[in-house]
Amino acid sequence: MSERNIRVESIDRQAVEDQEVEIVERKGIGHPDSICDGIAESVAGALAREYIDRVGEVLHFNTDETQLVAGEAAPAFGGGEVVDPIYLLIVGRATKHYDGQAIPAETIALRAAREYLESEIPHLTVGEDIVVDVKLGEGSGDLQEVFGEDEVSVPMANDTSFGVGHAPLTETEQIVREAERRLNGEYAAENPEVGPDVKIMGKREGDTIDVTVAAAMVDEYIADLDDYIEAVESVREFVDGVAREHTDREVAVHVNTADDYEEGSIFLTVTGTSAEQGDDGSVGRGNRANGLITPNRSMSMEATSGKNPVNHIGKIYNLLSTEIAESVVSEVDGIRDLRVRLLSQIGRPIDQPHVADVQLVTDDGVAVSDVDADVEAIVNRELANVTEITRSVIEGELTTF
Amino acid sequence: MSERNIRVESIDRQAVEDQEVEIVERKGIGHPDSICDGIAESVAGALAREYIDRVGEVLHFNTDETQLVAGEAAPAFGGGEVVDPIYLLIVGRATKHYDGQAIPAETIALRAAREYLESEIPHLTVGEDIVVDVKLGEGSGDLQEVFGEDEVSVPMANDTSFGVGHAPLTETEQIVREAERRLNGEYAAENPEVGPDVKIMGKREGDTIDVTVAAAMVDEYIADLDDYIEAVESVREFVDGVAREHTDREVAVHVNTADDYEEGSIFLTVTGTSAEQGDDGSVGRGNRANGLITPNRSMSMEATSGKNPVNHIGKIYNLLSTEIAESVVSEVDGIRDLRVRLLSQIGRPIDQPHVADVQLVTDDGVAVSDVDADVEAIVNRELANVTEITRSVIEGELTTF
Amino acid sequence: MSERNIRVESIDRQAVEDQEVEIVERKGIGHPDSICDGIAESVAGALAREYIDRVGEVLHFNTDETQLVAGEAAPAFGGGEVVDPIYLLIVGRATKHYDGQAIPAETIALRAAREYLESEIPHLTVGEDIVVDVKLGEGSGDLQEVFGEDEVSVPMANDTSFGVGHAPLTETEQIVREAERRLNGEYAAENPEVGPDVKIMGKREGDTIDVTVAAAMVDEYIADLDDYIEAVESVREFVDGVAREHTDREVAVHVNTADDYEEGSIFLTVTGTSAEQGDDGSVGRGNRANGLITPNRSMSMEATSGKNPVNHIGKIYNLLSTEIAESVVSEVDGIRDLRVRLLSQIGRPIDQPHVADVQLVTDDGVAVSDVDADVEAIVNRELANVTEITRSVIEGELTTF
Amino acid sequence: MSERNIRVESIDRQAVEDQEVEIVERKGIGHPDSICDGIAESVAGALAREYIDRVGEVLHFNTDETQLVAGEAAPAFGGGEVVDPIYLLIVGRATKHYDGQAIPAETIALRAAREYLESEIPHLTVGEDIVVDVKLGEGSGDLQEVFGEDEVSVPMANDTSFGVGHAPLTETEQIVREAERRLNGEYAAENPEVGPDVKIMGKREGDTIDVTVAAAMVDEYIADLDDYIEAVESVREFVDGVAREHTDREVAVHVNTADDYEEGSIFLTVTGTSAEQGDDGSVGRGNRANGLITPNRSMSMEATSGKNPVNHIGKIYNLLSTEIAESVVSEVDGIRDLRVRLLSQIGRPIDQPHVADVQLVTDDGVAVSDVDADVEAIVNRELANVTEITRSVIEGELTTF
Repeated sequence: MSERNIRVESIDRQAVEDQEVEIVERKGIGHPDSICDGIAESVAGALAREYIDRVGEVLHFNTDETQLVAGEAAPAFGGGEVVDPIYLLIVGRATKHYDGQAIPAETIALRAAREYLESEIPHLTVGEDIVVDVKLGEGSGDLQEVFGEDEVSVPMANDTSFGVGHAPLTETEQIVREAERRLNGEYAAENPEVGPDVKIMGKREGDTIDVTVAAAMVDEYIADLDDYIEAVESVREFVDGVAREHTDREVAVHVNTADDYEEGSIFLTVTGTSAEQGDDGSVGRGNRANGLITPNRSMSMEATSGKNPVNHIGKIYNLLSTEIAESVVSEVDGIRDLRVRLLSQIGRPIDQPHVADVQLVTDDGVAVSDVDADVEAIVNRELANVTEITRSVIEGELTTF
Repeated sequence: MSERNIRVESIDRQAVEDQEVEIVERKGIGHPDSICDGIAESVAGALAREYIDRVGEVLHFNTDETQLVAGEAAPAFGGGEVVDPIYLLIVGRATKHYDGQAIPAETIALRAAREYLESEIPHLTVGEDIVVDVKLGEGSGDLQEVFGEDEVSVPMANDTSFGVGHAPLTETEQIVREAERRLNGEYAAENPEVGPDVKIMGKREGDTIDVTVAAAMVDEYIADLDDYIEAVESVREFVDGVAREHTDREVAVHVNTADDYEEGSIFLTVTGTSAEQGDDGSVGRGNRANGLITPNRSMSMEATSGKNPVNHIGKIYNLLSTEIAESVVSEVDGIRDLRVRLLSQIGRPIDQPHVADVQLVTDDGVAVSDVDADVEAIVNRELANVTEITRSVIEGELTTF
Repeated sequence: MSERNIRVESIDRQAVEDQEVEIVERKGIGHPDSICDGIAESVAGALAREYIDRVGEVLHFNTDETQLVAGEAAPAFGGGEVVDPIYLLIVGRATKHYDGQAIPAETIALRAAREYLESEIPHLTVGEDIVVDVKLGEGSGDLQEVFGEDEVSVPMANDTSFGVGHAPLTETEQIVREAERRLNGEYAAENPEVGPDVKIMGKREGDTIDVTVAAAMVDEYIADLDDYIEAVESVREFVDGVAREHTDREVAVHVNTADDYEEGSIFLTVTGTSAEQGDDGSVGRGNRANGLITPNRSMSMEATSGKNPVNHIGKIYNLLSTEIAESVVSEVDGIRDLRVRLLSQIGRPIDQPHVADVQLVTDDGVAVSDVDADVEAIVNRELANVTEITRSVIEGELTTF
Repeated sequence: MSERNIRVESIDRQAVEDQEVEIVERKGIGHPDSICDGIAESVAGALAREYIDRVGEVLHFNTDETQLVAGEAAPAFGGGEVVDPIYLLIVGRATKHYDGQAIPAETIALRAAREYLESEIPHLTVGEDIVVDVKLGEGSGDLQEVFGEDEVSVPMANDTSFGVGHAPLTETEQIVREAERRLNGEYAAENPEVGPDVKIMGKREGDTIDVTVAAAMVDEYIADLDDYIEAVESVREFVDGVAREHTDREVAVHVNTADDYEEGSIFLTVTGTSAEQGDDGSVGRGNRANGLITPNRSMSMEATSGKNPVNHIGKIYNLLSTEIAESVVSEVDGIRDLRVRLLSQIGRPIDQPHVADVQLVTDDGVAVSDVDADVEAIVNRELANVTEITRSVIEGELTTF
């Protein structure tokens, strides 16, 4: 155990990869909950950068509560329309007055939300298909932390909180995460009919992986039912290909299984998100900080998105523990599964957690004692660089959902 | 008296031009109340046109209740910023479901409002400096009127209502109206420092006219106090020039009289409207249908803007009576002052008012009996063309405030 | 002309009582526009009293912008229900921070609104049938006026504004005003089926007065159509009786003329106000300060309700001119019609208007010169007591709509 | 394995009770997130009961998205006040029109929220200290399930979802849950100074349990700092006593550790909840269905509160798996830790999950094979009674947070 109270030990369970049943889910970028996560985090980043620009350091804020109220839409082959607009309320606190100057926190938040929506949900016309409203209470002017242009100090933990990270991802986790990212990336670039609301569930039983995709199709690019069926099949083939890059297990991919062609019930949308029709959303209800929902693993309930990256210990520790887990696994051989848990201690610097608890499953033939010194060194190094997490979040380099 | 129950008679008062004291006011296009009037009317026009496009006739709606909640701003020489956004709520009813199809009334309303704001208050960034929200209840699907592409019928009056119009404008009225229009037109085109929130009050006592202008200056174009003072003086000179085109009376123009240079209290804005800083607004609180507030004349309390132009009898009669008054005065010589009042009768076609009451002051040497037949003929003709008012409003050719 | 610049002269028109056509309207206490007026004024009174209680004087506020968005209801004989709640937004500015203490302006406003609604629209369940929301911006802490417990000073006019009052009321005006008040008073006390949304229009042509009443019936007290018809007839008889107390002219009373029994279309409500079903409302759109809409008379566009009674010159002058008119007529004989206009002058104490303009029609045989000294003395006295208007408004003794 | 695809097997980890570090948290009834959970669930129950009353079966709805925007308060010894009201928005969908009748879903929701708040957060004055607003979209009329007065059928799973339950609770879990319940129950009854916003975190390291309590004190009952200190100490003693009823391990209880008496920073509130001052809240961000946050255990991300208990498979399976786990442990001896996971299969009746996965740690000397038949029988029985979960939720007999 180091000065930083780092423990490295064997985990008391099998590697998730070796468990009999595994479930993994990812709500894509255009899912209503993810839209809220994305806006909350965009707003937080914009506020942090503005505070640094204006007063040289990040002031108190917390914007982790965006609420989306779904609209109603009338999709139609060739292009329908949103009938009742979505309503989105940005909620939180932010410092609006500091040292004699007024800081336009709500205006900054609205701009960040608009830019995010225009970039990520491009078929949604902001101000017509969606009303973006804001209620930011006044933050505590005396709660700002020293994280600025010139000096960076390690803040004290102001809460007892907990973060958890894992590595490496299992095959199923890799498939779920990659499938969504690549559908919303390279695939959508070529196939504009696929909207950003792509939800993927992976279920592995033994050596059989079922991947279920719910992909919102954008009606403007779908001429008729045949087109739709073709688009669905094309997604299936693409995801199947992605999956096979990550596993040799048996894979079955299912797309838009709730469709009923006879009844004309298909996942057709105007804007590429189900927020247009009945699906509400809010922050912290979907993906964890590593982009996945993994019931087989310890998860933090913490809503990471939108929180202040300077002093919100839950946010920092969830992101940091994930970073640590990934660093360890990439640098140290022989680790089959690894969990990092960081528990804060109120009043101590956040680079000195109450406990940094690393639990691992080693490969056959590797003992914990073979790797623990290397692991501890990496954990120690990453903790020492904790403020780098803050910097990355402010720069928008780290995803939180 | 015609079949249309038109009365032409002498008015029992002096011409307003000859009264001892006269007060006239106009709230310019960027005044918070006028912003609401303008949006309400834009929304109404957009809905009417969409209904005609989609179902061939105008369906029931009424959108005469936009509410604006002022923001907070920090103007500064050279360019400040809006600190707390303005909130604007579009309120009313509109038919959203008709004959099996959904009509996106709220989306249409939001688009119309945005386009209006971007056109008329260009320094206000919609979605950042102002949040536009909407609450339109469902209109009565069975209340639509036949005003469509193919056939136009004269609707029945569904209320006892009243409209009033006047002509010609007095010198003071002309000065007030023209000064605002030209400040917001040719002058602002050359002098971008003048924002659209220009409020003008004219007061005439005998042959002395005082014109008081409150003109919001846009900080981006004002480098310092000297610049501001120069801009104020330039407005004064311009308005003085406009006034002298309309009168030979003595004129004094005062601009931004509430300024206090010593205290640094001046009418400097970021966006060109006082809605950015503490001035709320709503529909029907400012100018009457002829663009003026004229306590010396009969006025209708009716909020004309935003009402349905097909069947809202108060709106139609206020616009029509103004049209009639102007037509009479332009076609018939010898009239010094004229008031037209139209009173509806429930259940009768709106081209047959309960009474069309024309009261006039003739020039010296002209008797009412010299002109009454001509006047009546014009009134009769205009009433027969009542649906032309509806058409003009739908096309956006008539102003309502 | 006195030091106070009081003019007394003959009006250049007939007494309204002698004009050929006269139109008068009153929107009853439960009309959606009146609900907004009533809440705005209640909120203003509550704020003013709280400021005096807390800091000893009235601070800056202005709450003249309440907006009501109608709900939907399903009335039914014997008792129906509100199906979609009404939404009401209290809008304005109020001082929330003063001299180191926080003043809960929004909480005060919400309480005042709730108490008003519970008192005046008792069948409306606040928090279920109606959502009351509030957006009060921060008032200017430096704008308070000295109107407190200990000292009262006459404030300076901070705007060029205008108030107008009339007396005596014509017969038609008296009928309209009294009919609404007594329907909502003694009659409703005995006949709970009559809701507070009673709208009355009086039209006089020569010596024939038509009184048209639209009275919302409360479904809980109406068992069936026969009951309804009986209730309508009973209202008609009552109003007929009221009318005959005020005139010897021919009177015809019509109640709920838009009803169509065949189609089952009647004015039946759950809550006694049409705000429950499609009728939006806002401040300043209905009755003028004397409780009436009188197109035959000069009217101010000023929304009196909700304005600050200490320093809002438009509010004060509208109320004061009405008081003056009534005082003159009650104290001086021989006046058939009288109009008082008060015009403020920026920067002068409000008891010294730019002009106090009294115009009158005398009875036959009475000359203006017979009464002008008495009139001027009364005007002078009332102006000297201008702060009494403020006090009365704060105490809730004066109605504003 | 039964027809119901029930698996009973050994879990691949230690019992949580035997793990080295354990963390447990409970957000008390008055925590902002719990307020949202509680309102969402109250609204859901009220809607379900009303649907049964009105149409004989539960119609489609989902109200799992309440959002709370914190207010501002000025607590003071002896009694302060809320300065800026809390804003709470009830969000979701509900069937408003069914078979020709209108169902007042929003009115029902508002009433349920108000009653809940008045019951659970009694010092919060609804309509003054908190504005409750609602936005419920129209539910799909064709999505109702047959769960009515007369017949109950087992619905089909309409989603792939997952529920997880655990039993028995560890000592730390029991302490955390009981401490909150009893503080908000018997203790608050005697000690009204303790508000409902009590947050408890338990941390066990080996045989040492730290219990950290954050308890909002109600200022009305706290005369001064000494009183406050006494109240804090009294809570500490009470929780210490509760803890000792559940464990023989070493226990340390800490209350309101963030207080700083020197700086006058204490957890004093007007209303007993931190929602009054800066703490926002929303549904599904706090306790899981068993009332706890347990990072040592598998948790579902599902927001259970507010979901439709007839057909929302995630809600039903989370509640049911918890019920199963508790039943098994109470009926079968020799089980030290047990986890039940239920995974749905789209299109199959919900009493036939894709897999019902029971994993357990047995006591020393007990083999899985000794108990598996008994366990399976209980799981089978509980699955067969799955609609009893729905009934209990509708009746408000089951808590969801």
